[in-house]
Parts: sequence; structure tokens; C-alpha cells
Amino acid sequence: MAARTSTRPKAFRSPTEIPLRALGAVQDPTDLRAGRIPLTAATPAVPGGFTPKAFVGEVVPFGVVAFREGHDLIGVQLRLTSPGGEESLHRLRPLLDGTDRWSAEIALDVQGTWSFRFEAFSDDFATWAHATEVKVAAGVDVPVMAALGADLLTRAAAEKDRPAAQRRLLTALAAELRAGDADRTLELSTDTDLARIFSERPLTTLRSASEIRPLLVERTAAGVGAWYEFFPRSEGAKRLKDGSIKSGTFRTAAKRLPAVAGMGFDIVYLVPIHPIGTTNRKGRNNTLTAEPGDPGSPYAIGAAEGGHDAIHPELGTPADFRAFVRAAQREGLEVALDLALQASPDHPWVAEHPEWFTTLPDGTIAFAENPPKKYQDIYPLNFDNDPAGIYAEMLRIVQHWVRQGVKIFRVDNPHTKPLQFWEWLIATVNAADPDVIFLAEAFTRPAVMRALAAVGFQQSYSYFTWRNTKAELEEFLETIAHETSDYMRPNLFVNTHDILTEYLQFGGRAAYRVRACIGATAAPVYGVYAGYELFENVARPGSEENIDNEKYEFKLRDWDAAEQSGDSLAPLLRRLNGIRREHPALRQLRNLSVHWSDDDAILVYSKHLDAAFTGTGEPDTIIVVANVDPHSVRETTVHLDTTVWGITPGEPFEVEDLLTGAVWTWTDHNYVRLDAFAEPVHILKVRGRA
Amino acid sequence: MAARTSTRPKAFRSPTEIPLRALGAVQDPTDLRAGRIPLTAATPAVPGGFTPKAFVGEVVPFGVVAFREGHDLIGVQLRLTSPGGEESLHRLRPLLDGTDRWSAEIALDVQGTWSFRFEAFSDDFATWAHATEVKVAAGVDVPVMAALGADLLTRAAAEKDRPAAQRRLLTALAAELRAGDADRTLELSTDTDLARIFSERPLTTLRSASEIRPLLVERTAAGVGAWYEFFPRSEGAKRLKDGSIKSGTFRTAAKRLPAVAGMGFDIVYLVPIHPIGTTNRKGRNNTLTAEPGDPGSPYAIGAAEGGHDAIHPELGTPADFRAFVRAAQREGLEVALDLALQASPDHPWVAEHPEWFTTLPDGTIAFAENPPKKYQDIYPLNFDNDPAGIYAEMLRIVQHWVRQGVKIFRVDNPHTKPLQFWEWLIATVNAADPDVIFLAEAFTRPAVMRALAAVGFQQSYSYFTWRNTKAELEEFLETIAHETSDYMRPNLFVNTHDILTEYLQFGGRAAYRVRACIGATAAPVYGVYAGYELFENVARPGSEENIDNEKYEFKLRDWDAAEQSGDSLAPLLRRLNGIRREHPALRQLRNLSVHWSDDDAILVYSKHLDAAFTGTGEPDTIIVVANVDPHSVRETTVHLDTTVWGITPGEPFEVEDLLTGAVWTWTDHNYVRLDAFAEPVHILKVRGRA
Repeated sequence: MAARTSTRPKAFRSPTEIPLRALGAVQDPTDLRAGRIPLTAATPAVPGGFTPKAFVGEVVPFGVVAFREGHDLIGVQLRLTSPGGEESLHRLRPLLDGTDRWSAEIALDVQGTWSFRFEAFSDDFATWAHATEVKVAAGVDVPVMAALGADLLTRAAAEKDRPAAQRRLLTALAAELRAGDADRTLELSTDTDLARIFSERPLTTLRSASEIRPLLVERTAAGVGAWYEFFPRSEGAKRLKDGSIKSGTFRTAAKRLPAVAGMGFDIVYLVPIHPIGTTNRKGRNNTLTAEPGDPGSPYAIGAAEGGHDAIHPELGTPADFRAFVRAAQREGLEVALDLALQASPDHPWVAEHPEWFTTLPDGTIAFAENPPKKYQDIYPLNFDNDPAGIYAEMLRIVQHWVRQGVKIFRVDNPHTKPLQFWEWLIATVNAADPDVIFLAEAFTRPAVMRALAAVGFQQSYSYFTWRNTKAELEEFLETIAHETSDYMRPNLFVNTHDILTEYLQFGGRAAYRVRACIGATAAPVYGVYAGYELFENVARPGSEENIDNEKYEFKLRDWDAAEQSGDSLAPLLRRLNGIRREHPALRQLRNLSVHWSDDDAILVYSKHLDAAFTGTGEPDTIIVVANVDPHSVRETTVHLDTTVWGITPGEPFEVEDLLTGAVWTWTDHNYVRLDAFAEPVHILKVRGRA
Repeated sequence: MAARTSTRPKAFRSPTEIPLRALGAVQDPTDLRAGRIPLTAATPAVPGGFTPKAFVGEVVPFGVVAFREGHDLIGVQLRLTSPGGEESLHRLRPLLDGTDRWSAEIALDVQGTWSFRFEAFSDDFATWAHATEVKVAAGVDVPVMAALGADLLTRAAAEKDRPAAQRRLLTALAAELRAGDADRTLELSTDTDLARIFSERPLTTLRSASEIRPLLVERTAAGVGAWYEFFPRSEGAKRLKDGSIKSGTFRTAAKRLPAVAGMGFDIVYLVPIHPIGTTNRKGRNNTLTAEPGDPGSPYAIGAAEGGHDAIHPELGTPADFRAFVRAAQREGLEVALDLALQASPDHPWVAEHPEWFTTLPDGTIAFAENPPKKYQDIYPLNFDNDPAGIYAEMLRIVQHWVRQGVKIFRVDNPHTKPLQFWEWLIATVNAADPDVIFLAEAFTRPAVMRALAAVGFQQSYSYFTWRNTKAELEEFLETIAHETSDYMRPNLFVNTHDILTEYLQFGGRAAYRVRACIGATAAPVYGVYAGYELFENVARPGSEENIDNEKYEFKLRDWDAAEQSGDSLAPLLRRLNGIRREHPALRQLRNLSVHWSDDDAILVYSKHLDAAFTGTGEPDTIIVVANVDPHSVRETTVHLDTTVWGITPGEPFEVEDLLTGAVWTWTDHNYVRLDAFAEPVHILKVRGRA
């Protein structure tokens, strides 16, 4: 409903100009929330009133509930204003499912803050045409309907903004209707050319409008991308003769970039690159005492060499880092940095700003803790002690790295900092540079995850790693594509340096294949932590993280040897990223449909993009059929709602498996056989009617 | 989240006093929507921003999602302001189900507009007590926790609004903690008296508040009541010797009132009582030509004798009507009138205000229609021709009847008039007299029904008559009790003069029993149209309405004879209304829980009211078990979530069938046998632990 806010368009404040004040107790006509034609439940929208989000190139479904009393027909349109102030009008179509919901899909192509409002009107020509068609057929009211039609066309012909030729045509047709011939009246009420004239420029009354709402369109990388995480210190690290390991550097890590780009990734994400504290440094496998040579956790940020704006001396110099960023750019890769707002006891903040931490009655600074558990290498910031000082410093740090060429930040544990801090930081950073992207690493309760997305995070880690059964995945995919997609963009990391799920630990190589295929196709952003290609699946006993976690030690890996011996997932990742580049349907979040299969472990979903949005003039449709039980060979029937991609149920069409090249003729019911030990997933391109 | 509206409490605008403007691009600190402790998804709330509703005596669940970063504990409270301006504070309890939702149930006891807001705070004592308990148990940080506790208690002791004795106690305990003894520290961290002191008056920081929202509390009859509909012209109508029928009058109809009151009804609703047009008057069974003596449809309002403010001469005089209203009041009954805003061709409006209708090009006034169908005895108003004139006249009519002692209106087909007209009319009428109640008869699409309720209708007809299977009823009951109950109050009419469902047509007497039992117990408002007691179940062939519909003729019924011969449902209705009076749990809408049974036709639900709200000091719990297949005898097991009424699963308790007096010992799993032909429904009172 049009709300009583200053965003209600002035022209629609009181469309019927009823002198309500004179009539009774309602003080102000704008106290009425319902418009003459009510418009309610407008989307995109975010719970809590935050600004909905989209990305450049995203096809966004705009929707609103609109209805009027009685039987007359209405029209609904969307008035979109681009960041540059250009207005465009888009007609919505009724869903006709009893919900009174109207919808239109629109691709947004300019970065910035758009605004939109919905407008409804009595569609006088459509009402007349419908009533005339059924009445003339029933022999009822023919002269009256002809005369009403003549009046309507005469009214339309008087509209000065119609082309002169059209106005002449309408005048002539009005004269014909005035003659009152039943056949000609019926003919005109069903005339498609006349209908098109009024579909393009409807004859309207009772115009009503919803309030004006904003929509933030961010750059494409906010919503689309394949991420690859690695520890730069491991890339090029070498075991010396004395058994110790020499750290990799930005220079050696840069040598890995062509391989990452060659696998088709878009973004390389580096864990923190700052000096690491020595006080209470953690040893291998998170032990409390580090041995000589243990590099420490990169999350214990800060040492004599500096804090969050410094670079670990073993990785190189600021110039080396900038060279690394440039090398990545040359490979078509963008660098993402970790933003972990906490300090080792050796961080310069501790001496310079002890007020930013919590000092205990015994004079010591409080460690991070989850009582009685304690993290002895980390001091958390206390944002309530000197918020202005801390806010300013955090802004300074982000802006420092932006100046070094970094525009993407993976934010460590944002749910341990005040929500309003993030709302402020992201708004402030983006006001100066709207290209900066923040990914929230918050594996926490749903309300908190969603609130972080709502206040501004461009991307969010999600529960994806823990959604492994068919039932879990179906619910998860429906939620991310349709329930939270106006504000939350899940980044489907298949693993992280902290997460090695039981599914991967015990699912063998099939599990790695299945999860990569789903992560890469179900959402437009997904990620892989280095080592996934090597099927690194041994966990610290009883935990869900890798044994010998890279957080506490160097990892020496031979990528090429693994690929040469066939023990690498790199070829599959390369193919998946290639498929993502070739298929625009996979670069959308909201276009997913779950389909049915008769088997409890065969997951089926499709991603479809209409021809209007692909740029090729052809629609793009991908069907993914995955056996999510990595220990089985399964045969079943899948049942597809082919109307999603415009094929009548029963009609045959061709599909091509983009992983194997196999081609089949399918209909809406199809036999599949998926062997976890060979090919656990079909990624099928619909090639059109067979 | 706290929104940037003028309703945000000033004290909480920028709780941390961060000079954000100086720090960066965010222009105004109040631009932040997230509070220091975010408060979001507050309920009660209505989609579209309309004002939520409750009724005097209703127990309303207030809820909000609140959380903070990290592990420290928070408290959440509700600050309620009564229409008289009295403030009260209510602590919420966390649901602890992973949703971060907090809730409190509160009975609202004063009619008028309340306001409420939620407040959250860091609960510093609870945080300390929890951390201390686990740390001392683990032998960690004992001196520090003791010192922190001493600081906390000292801070509390300094709060001037604490009682002096409490402040002395806290000072003494602080001194004890200062000594640092581990055992004493653990003892105090788990001391229930100390916990109670801080539960009643918590030690708070980071106070945050949601915006202030209104809640409209209407009189009890808006939400509770048993309705009985009849045609006054049928009550006391007599067949004369010439075979014609002499109309009943308000005087003869008044003789029926003691019987209606005797059955326990609260409200008598009369179909329109105005003069009926003669032009195109409908004959029996909606035929186009009336025979002499046919009384016509009371919905064809208006004749030479007057319009909506007049009384049909055959019913009596205005004085007779007022006497009827007084007679009803003496019986404890309130009279509801029909408000059908349309005119017969003979209505005075037609001559006086032809501009209120739609004039066709041939000079005639348009009939009501659903093309090509036409309603030749009715002209619809065209609200867009002279809205100010029509609005004023409709207000005048309502106010006329209010002056005659009528405060309840059943509104015919409100969905055929503009939604914003209803929003204006109800607000305007209620501003002068908040006791006036409007019931929306809109059997239309869900969005429209809900919008009518949202803009102000106090009650709504619902889809109840068409929800007959167990699955349909389960979904329906969950929806009305939990999804729409902040604004929509369904009136569960079991039949109307327009609706005789197939379930009743073909379900025999069992169907009538089952529907009455469910209608009377599932929601606090329900209704019966006269004749239901007599099992009138013959429909016009192919339709869902009674044959020889009372809209077009007089009905002569012998209520007493039917009851004497055992062919009346009146005894059951009398018992059901008695049960409703005895059991406050049945006079609430939101307290319904659906339970499980193993049979597809055995519906199970309970209504529970905590002892705090019953007025007796005892909780009130009713379990309804209904066999909704009226053609069967069924045996099955019902499975109850007894925790709803505070009984541990497995614990036995006694139930008494309020229809038969049978008493059984039940647990959470119970055998039932329901014979449609004898006793198709159990209405069980939980008598407490066996």
C-alpha cells in the first residue's frame, strides 16, 4: 500500500481528490494507506526496511500484489529510474494463480542506486474489450457496448501524446463503432492490432502508485565469480636441507597465478598477509606452544613489524604485494584480502591504544574467549570503549588496501563485531568507492547471517558445506534463490581452511566431484580452498577441519604431479569454470528451479535464462542431475517441469551432457543412471526441440 | 531494526554517541538502521504497515528478534503504553530454538490505541554469572572473575533507584567478592536471590530500542462472540387461509429472541431490513419474475418508502425496530445489521443522485454484472463519479443506525467497493465511536480478504465453510491462529443464507454436528444461519445454496416441534455455547495447537490458556478430537504435544468429555474411537495430572 512517507509520489497523493478532511475524522487524506488501486507486498524488498541489492547483469523479478474491486481489469507497470535519472516503464503480467501478484523480469545494467515504484490503473480498453467479447457473443447489450467503445476510442484519439496516424485511426474506428454493428463491434473487441495499441499506451483511469523504493545495483563481481583461496606463504615454500621450511613469498606465490587463472577462477583470496605475533604463537594443529620454525596463525595479526596495514616480512615488501596484485590482474584475476579485526598481543594497537581492548581488574588485557575456552594468541577489540577511534582506524585500514589495488575483502567472523559497525563501514567505504566488496564469513545463526547481509555485506558464506543430502540441498537452494536473494548472495565455498565436512572426509573422490559440480552451478558465486583439487580429506580426529591445518604450518603441494598422475580435480574445476563462462544462466542467482526425481539421493535442478537476457538471442537452460550419495550407483526417473524453459510437457527435446559430450533426447520424464564412482553428475544443456 | 522515523525514541538515537559524521560519508547518525543491539521482525505487525489489532481480554504474543555479537548475554523487554498513557515493562524470554526470537504473552485489558517498543540491553550480571560459573568450575581466571563481580555489584549498589537495603546488601557482597575466594565467588555466581535482584532490575549497558509501534485494542465483541443470523420477516410469518403468507414483523421476530439467547448466542444478525424494490423483483429461487406475494430479496434495497435509512413497512416502524433492539438487549443479545451498499432501481438515490451510478450511452443506469451475467434488481454505486458525495452518504447511513442502537454491521460484498473507502469509513466511524464493529463478507481471493482485514474490518468471513478435510482444516487453523491473527479475525460461520456446502448437503446430521463443534471451538467468533439447527440440507440442484432460498421467500419453521421430536441441533448448540462461556481458552484466537493422529480423518487440536490469564488461578486446556469423515466409524491413536499445557510427555492426566461427561486417563498417546453416527467429536477438558 502507498505509505505515508515522503517517498509517495506527489501526483498520486489523493488520486480521486476526495475532500476527506471535510467528511469526517480522518485528519489528512494521506493518512489513508490504501491507494485507489492497492499496491502491496512490493519486491525486491528486505526485511527490516534495508535496501535490496542486485548486481550489474542480474535479471531481477519485480513483483507487487495489485487488485481492484469488482470485475474491471487493471494494468500494472513498473517505473524504474536509473542512477543517471533515466526513467523507463515496464508492464507487469499477472501471475493468474489466485495471488493477485504481478511480475516482470528486468536485467539491470548500470551500477548505482536505482529507484522504482509500481503504478496501477484501471485498464479501460481491456475492460471494454473483454466485456464486449462475452456480451456480443451472448447477444447482450450490443448497442451499448458499441457506443461505450466509440466513447473510449474517441477519448484515446484526443490524447495528444499519441501519434497522429494512430489518432486518425482511432477516430475512424470510433465512427464505425458508433454505427453499432454487432459483428464489427465483436471484431474490434478482439482485434489484435487495436489491442496492441492499447497495450503499448493504455487508456487509464484511477492511476495509483506505490511508494518509491531504492534498489542498489553493485558491480557484477559482487554477485558472480569463482573464488580460489590460498596461503601465499605455502606457494613456493621449500624444505631446506636442515629440514626447516623456507616461506613462500609474493614473488613465488605469483607463479601459481597462471595455473589458478588457467582453471578458470576469477578471484584469488589470500588469508591475512600481515605480520604474525610471537606471544603465545600457536604450534602445529593448534597446540599452545609453537616450535621453532612454526609460522603461526596468520589470524594472530600484528607484531613489532606492524599491524593491519603492514605486510609480513617473510612474504615481501609492499612493492612485492603490489606487483603480485598486478600479476594477478594480468591473468584476469582479482585479489581479495582477509579482514580479521583482531590483534595478537604484539600488535602496535596494544601499546598505542590499550583503550581499544578490555582491560581486566588485574591490569591484563582480556583474550578472546568462549568461556571457559580461551584464544591466547588473540585480543578482541572492544568496540564500545572508543568507538569513534576504532571506527576511524578500521576505515583507514580498508582504505589503505583499497589504495594498494584491493577491492574485495573476505571478512573474518563479522558476527563477533557490532552489526551497526558493519552497516556504517560498508556504507562509508562504498560511498567513496562503490566497487569495494565485502564477503561475510559468519557461520552463525540464521538471523545473524541474514542481518549481516541486510546491512550491506555484498556476499555471505552460507550453510552450503553442511547441506549434503538431497532434502537438505533442495530446501537450501530454494531459500537462496527465492527467499533471501533480494539481499543475500551466498558464496558456495565447497571447503575452507576451517571446514572439512564429514561428507568430504568419508565420501571419497565422488564427494569432491559432486560438491564441486553443485557449488559451481547452483549459485553464481562459489569458491574452493587450495588442496580441494588434491582430495585432501584427512581431518584432525573428531573435528571438521583438516589435520595439520595450514593455519599453523606451511603446505608443500605438487599440483602438476597430481594432475599428471590423474589424482587431481583440476581438470573438472577447469571444465566447470568453462561451463560457467559459456552459460549465462549459471551467472544468475534467482533463476533456479528444483525438479522431482523418484530417488532419495538424486537431486535435480535447472537454471534458465530467457532469450531476452542471454545476449545471443537464444535461451540458455542448464539441467543439473546429481547423485548426492557418493557411495552408490543409482538408476531412477527424473520428472521435469519443462514449462520453466518454455517446452510443453511431453514434447521431446535434446540435451547434451557438458561433462561427457553425450547427447540424449529427453521429455519431461527421463531415465537416468548416475554412478558415483564414474560420473556422479549430469550437467545438461538443453539444445532445443528434438 | 530501529528505523529512521520520528518514532525512534530520542534517548536511543545514537546510544554509543559515536561522532559518525566526522568519520566518513554517512551523513546522519540516524541513517544507521541497525541498533547497537539489533531488534528486528517485531510482532504484532501487519503486512503493508497497517496497525495490528487485538481485543480486550486477548492474550497477545509480543515477539522480536534480538541478538548481539559475541558471547555476552542480552536481555530484552517490552515497554507498553496503555491508551491512558501508563507505561509497563515486561521481560521477554528467549525461545532458544536458534531463531534469536524473544517472546512474552500479555493480556490487554483496556480498549484503545496502545503503543509498544522493544528494548534490548547487555545483561552485565547474567554475563558475569555465566562466565564465572563455568570458569571457576574449570579453575580459570578465578581472581579476575571475583574482581569483575565486585566491580559489577559496586556499580549496581551505586544506582540510586535501587532500595536502600538492596544497595547495602550489594555493597557487602562486593566486599566479599573483593576477597577473591573461589568457593564464595562460585556460590554468588549461582545464587538465586542475587539472580532475582538482577532479573528484576538488570544491570544494563548498550541499551537499544526498536521504533514505537501502535496496537489497536478493540472491545471484546470484536474478537469473541457466537452469532445467529435470521430473516426477521420469517419469524412469526403466517400462512393465511388464501394460501398467501403474512410477513413476520419486528414484534413477532422479537418472540424468537429468548430462544436464541437460550441457545447461548451473543449476537443476532439481521439481513437487510429496508424497503425492497419492486422493479425487476426476483421471484422464488432467483427467478426473473416475481409472483404476487413474493417478498423479494432484501438485498434489492430501496423503494418508494425509502432507502438505507428506512425500514420495510411490513417489518414495522422505526419505533418497532428500537423496541426489537431493546428486547434483544434484555436477553443479553446485541443486534447486527447488514450493510449492503447497493440500490434497487426504486431506491431514492436513483432519482436524487443519478451521478452515484454509471449511466450508459443509452441513458440507462448500469445494472450490477459479471459479464455476461447481470443482476437486474440491483444498481451498483460508482464510487468514482462523486466520491465525496457517496462517502458522506455512507457515513450518514452508518451513523443513523448507530443512533438507533446498532453497533455491529455485517458488510455485504465489501470487495466490490474501493478498499480505500473502507479504510476511510471504518477509521472515521471508529474515531467517533470505537465500539462499532464491521464484519467483512468477502469470499474472494486471499490477498483481497486480507487487505480488507488489514485496512480495518474487525472481523472477516473466511474460507472455513470450504475447509472440510483434515488436511484442509489443519492448514486453515494454523493460518488463522498464527499467520494472520495480528489483523484478521475469522468469523467461522458454519453456513449462511448463500452457502450450503456439499459437505453439509451430503454429510447427513454428523456433518452438521462436526462443523458446529469445530466452528464453536476453533476460533472465538463463529456463527450459524437459522435453519442449521433443522439440518436444512437440500440445495438448489448444482448449486451450493439452499433450495427455496430464504432470500426470495418466507420460511415457516417450527423450532419447538423439531426439538421435541429430537430432530434439532439446538441442544448441541446450547451445549457448545455453554462450553464457550465456561472455558476462557475458547475465547482466544491465537492459542491453538494442531496435534497428530494416525488417521487421515481424525483432526486433533488444543486450545490452552495459562493460569495467569484465566482469572481462576487454574490453566484452561481443551482438546478437540473430531472425525471429519461424516460417513465412518474410526479408531486410531492421537499423539499430543502435552508440553503445550505444561505436562511432561508420558505423564498421565485426566480428561473429561464435555459433551458426554465421560472421563478418561490420557497420556501423550491415546486410543480414540469416533462414531460419526453417534458421537463424532470429543471436546475434552484437561482436568490435570491423574
